[in-house]
Amino acid sequence: MALVVQKFGGTSVADPDRIRTVADSIARTIRRGNQVVVAVSAMGKDTDDLLRLATEVSVTRPGREMDMLITAGERKATALLCMALHDMGVDAESFTGSQAGFITDTTHTNAKILEVRADRIRDALDRGRVPVVGGSQGVSTDHNVTFLGRGGTDTTAVALAHALGADICELYTDVSGVFTSDPRVVPNARKMERISFDELLEMTANGCPKPAMRSVEYARTHGVDLHVRSAFTWEPGTLVTKEDDHMEHAIISAVVHDTDEAKVTVSGVPDHPGVAARLFRALADRDINVDLIVQNTSEHGKTDISFTVPRDAAETSQAVCDGLAAEIGAAEVRTDTEIARVSVVGAGMKSNPGVAATVFETLAGAGINIEMISTSAIRVSCVVRQDQIEEAVQVLHDAFELALAAD
Amino acid sequence: MALVVQKFGGTSVADPDRIRTVADSIARTIRRGNQVVVAVSAMGKDTDDLLRLATEVSVTRPGREMDMLITAGERKATALLCMALHDMGVDAESFTGSQAGFITDTTHTNAKILEVRADRIRDALDRGRVPVVGGSQGVSTDHNVTFLGRGGTDTTAVALAHALGADICELYTDVSGVFTSDPRVVPNARKMERISFDELLEMTANGCPKPAMRSVEYARTHGVDLHVRSAFTWEPGTLVTKEDDHMEHAIISAVVHDTDEAKVTVSGVPDHPGVAARLFRALADRDINVDLIVQNTSEHGKTDISFTVPRDAAETSQAVCDGLAAEIGAAEVRTDTEIARVSVVGAGMKSNPGVAATVFETLAGAGINIEMISTSAIRVSCVVRQDQIEEAVQVLHDAFELALAAD
Repeated sequence: MALVVQKFGGTSVADPDRIRTVADSIARTIRRGNQVVVAVSAMGKDTDDLLRLATEVSVTRPGREMDMLITAGERKATALLCMALHDMGVDAESFTGSQAGFITDTTHTNAKILEVRADRIRDALDRGRVPVVGGSQGVSTDHNVTFLGRGGTDTTAVALAHALGADICELYTDVSGVFTSDPRVVPNARKMERISFDELLEMTANGCPKPAMRSVEYARTHGVDLHVRSAFTWEPGTLVTKEDDHMEHAIISAVVHDTDEAKVTVSGVPDHPGVAARLFRALADRDINVDLIVQNTSEHGKTDISFTVPRDAAETSQAVCDGLAAEIGAAEVRTDTEIARVSVVGAGMKSNPGVAATVFETLAGAGINIEMISTSAIRVSCVVRQDQIEEAVQVLHDAFELALAAD
Repeated sequence: MALVVQKFGGTSVADPDRIRTVADSIARTIRRGNQVVVAVSAMGKDTDDLLRLATEVSVTRPGREMDMLITAGERKATALLCMALHDMGVDAESFTGSQAGFITDTTHTNAKILEVRADRIRDALDRGRVPVVGGSQGVSTDHNVTFLGRGGTDTTAVALAHALGADICELYTDVSGVFTSDPRVVPNARKMERISFDELLEMTANGCPKPAMRSVEYARTHGVDLHVRSAFTWEPGTLVTKEDDHMEHAIISAVVHDTDEAKVTVSGVPDHPGVAARLFRALADRDINVDLIVQNTSEHGKTDISFTVPRDAAETSQAVCDGLAAEIGAAEVRTDTEIARVSVVGAGMKSNPGVAATVFETLAGAGINIEMISTSAIRVSCVVRQDQIEEAVQVLHDAFELALAAD
């Protein structure tokens, strides 16, 4: 008998039929002799609807109240899923994040889990019940309802799996696993059978939308094995585990891309110590999540600093830099929203120094200009023009021979 | 400075505009120097929508899960109302029933309040906040979310007013107060300035839909003064207080009616001790709420027993009686759904023995046949044909001169 945590996302429970289909799958898992704990997101567009309603009602929208509002969505989904399970003879019990023991910090709308006190969940399992836990929610140390942020149900599931010592955490979603590239861009992208935490983390940090990056970090830190799979086809998906020394690594596992960023360039900055620190502290103070940073070689004591930020932070970033331009002696601040980033990710890269060169040659061969470069031990990222991103992904996917083997 | 509990029903907060209008009224009450605690229902049709969704998902619909589901509605309304208040510079904080300290029994979908531990609400008031509490909800002694039933927000408000020692509990609704009769039936019905708990209790028990009877009982038991008023016109409504010996009583305060009942007649029953007990125990065991009971004089050792039940319990009641007919020796069981009940209510009735006679004469004068009669110290009720109920209400309203005085 295994203890399985199963997470179902919003599209998986979007309507009554889907809820019954998910309940049926949970019931089958139990009949095969497993114990199951479920984490579930709000139905379909419910979270979006609640957010829109908040916008219609209020300008200020304080975080404490946003969290009280948004968590109504998962509450509804957990209760309905439990009812569907009861119809199938499965004794299920819904739990809010608070009831399930998710203690968080006091950062509303994006709270961090401090501790999972899973006593009530353990007790429910001991009584033969199937606990169904509202995703992405908890209670803060000052006793207020908190929301973990969009995509937080993945994190709820992983944290539950860790707290309960589950054998596996299954993340059911609307794609059938983790692919070598986005199948909408690369039609012959291949579903991977297995990938390491490190690789998946680089992929999710560089544009692969599912599972949520934070949940992958949590799983890596606590060694929770994941199985990313589909709640539509129910076929086996992709296992995410610790890197196995005995595994043969492909040099490159995947090509991912991100089109939701903008590039800001602050040019003609005097090359003095402390200028970059002043700039990025000011951006951090505005909660702007700066990603890639490139500083070009200084010419005549002046330098250009470029960085990428989420597209929706572009305007604020420009304003912050404009405000600092005089103080730091910058000549100009420009924002470019027509960029995109392509990244190749692979654990095998560590022992293959030629990967970056292959990436640059491949892009050059396709006539694609590289505007910024950033690398990690297992990733090479390039910023290119946005209208060339799909071609960039395709040529790199081909160059590293990631496609499905033709029969 | 007064401490005011204000309750807002579902129609009062049915859309973003209504929510902002309600927030504006709360803000004015505060600016006039009062402390305010708010109890709020789910928006408009939200509860109905959740109930329909449950029906679409599940056949069994266990109570624990229904309560988890339904309470999502008030959660949403409290959070949105707090946001609107923040926009107006009012520091409001939402509370679920559980957070507000509503401890209930374990009867799901219709829980009873055992205790209100209002420490967090008191603390919020001390910090200068406006607590906004989700109506009709609590947490059971075994730590599950409970729902107090439809219309439970009135009870939440009254219980809060009692626990906090509030000066007044204002029940805002979509009518402007308590009327001498239903204005849809009697166009010249008059809004009462003041009424006693006892009278309003008889009215709500006999067809007056608002406020919820249970909340009036709670207010009477604990001496919580009520002000029933409109969240649309905002004009002063009806005060509900303890009967005041110094008040001059109108003999009759109001004429109310109820068209949601059915009459069941068990005829030809042997007039033996224990027959009625057997019958009504069997109905109680099926949770059927029997109201009026009339047993006719015995002829030749046989008697007829008639009683009224809620319309939707008519079929079950007929079945229960059919099942018992042989055992108790009844000749026939008939159900009649075409009935209605008219009641005149007034505290002054106690010292005016002629009221019942006036009721019977008035109905007879209008050619309306009386099928059943029931009285209490301050009420006379008659069951009549349903197609004559509006006329019955009108002639009684006229007979007791309850109408607005013509100028």
